[in-house]
Amino acid sequence: MKVFGIDPGSERTGFGCIETSGTRYHLVASGAIVPPRAAAFPEKLLSIHARLAELLEHCQPDCVVIENVFHSVNVRTALKLGHARGVAMLAAVARGVPVVEYTPAEIKRALVGYGRAEKPQVQAMVKLLLGLDVPPTPYDAADALAAAICHVHTCGGTAPGVHQATRSSKALTSWRHYRVERDLR
Amino acid sequence: MKVFGIDPGSERTGFGCIETSGTRYHLVASGAIVPPRAAAFPEKLLSIHARLAELLEHCQPDCVVIENVFHSVNVRTALKLGHARGVAMLAAVARGVPVVEYTPAEIKRALVGYGRAEKPQVQAMVKLLLGLDVPPTPYDAADALAAAICHVHTCGGTAPGVHQATRSSKALTSWRHYRVERDLR
Repeated sequence: MKVFGIDPGSERTGFGCIETSGTRYHLVASGAIVPPRAAAFPEKLLSIHARLAELLEHCQPDCVVIENVFHSVNVRTALKLGHARGVAMLAAVARGVPVVEYTPAEIKRALVGYGRAEKPQVQAMVKLLLGLDVPPTPYDAADALAAAICHVHTCGGTAPGVHQATRSSKALTSWRHYRVERDLR
Repeated sequence: MKVFGIDPGSERTGFGCIETSGTRYHLVASGAIVPPRAAAFPEKLLSIHARLAELLEHCQPDCVVIENVFHSVNVRTALKLGHARGVAMLAAVARGVPVVEYTPAEIKRALVGYGRAEKPQVQAMVKLLLGLDVPPTPYDAADALAAAICHVHTCGGTAPGVHQATRSSKALTSWRHYRVERDLR
């Protein structure tokens, strides 16, 4: 199964694709889409959408995971973020790829076991779980990969040691154990 | 010149296209895109984008006008609205059509001469200005037409009695006079 995570933003949209094979998973692609700073806002949306469409064509994921945000932003920021999320969702759904959403707290809990973990902690855990030599950068790419990993952890059956988990936070805490095991290998 | 107005929303997106010819303008198309209520949110975005792309292909406008919103909504509403605005903008910019934005107050001032006018007042003025037999419905379609008319009034040179206006609110007030003239014909 291939899972494509997106951390949308009009200035910088992180993406990360992972592939699960049996009990393991590995990195397929990750990075960030940074539209030209001087571009008009609609042009930025166009470049985000076009690049995501290319990446989805290249990666052929089975599902797309997008971070869901409800809090910690003001109306103006939420409106801007909504535009980027809208075109990101569109890129997925136009290909018939299902879109799954998790809150930042759910993603952090799934990876670090703590819903208010800092970005460097998430980044370090993504590096560890994907067996990378260096942490994925920028943070947006790490966050997108974290969203993809969160989905693999919670959608069940495709990662080691995990039962068919629900999206409940309690189910996610079982990953604290998994993490430790993997850390020791 | 053809101007295509959009009043975006995830539940109902109003649209309205007008064409100016010499000193007059007339209605080309108007209506609302209402995605199936039971559809998932990404599917709603897909249907809004697909229908707008069809309409833009059909109408071949020279520019697209979208209502800009900063106030009167909470974070959750702003985020949802942002998604719909994002895919609407994308439909325009993907065709190379320029996107212009006006605040609701600017649009109302351009049509009714009062930035806090009620929806029925805007609807009645759209009916009057376009010489329609019945007011355009629903309100979303009237609002989209109002946005398009606002742009014709402010972009200059294409409507009767208007000098090359800027987007400043002061320039818009000259339309109060134009409206009265037209009303008396």
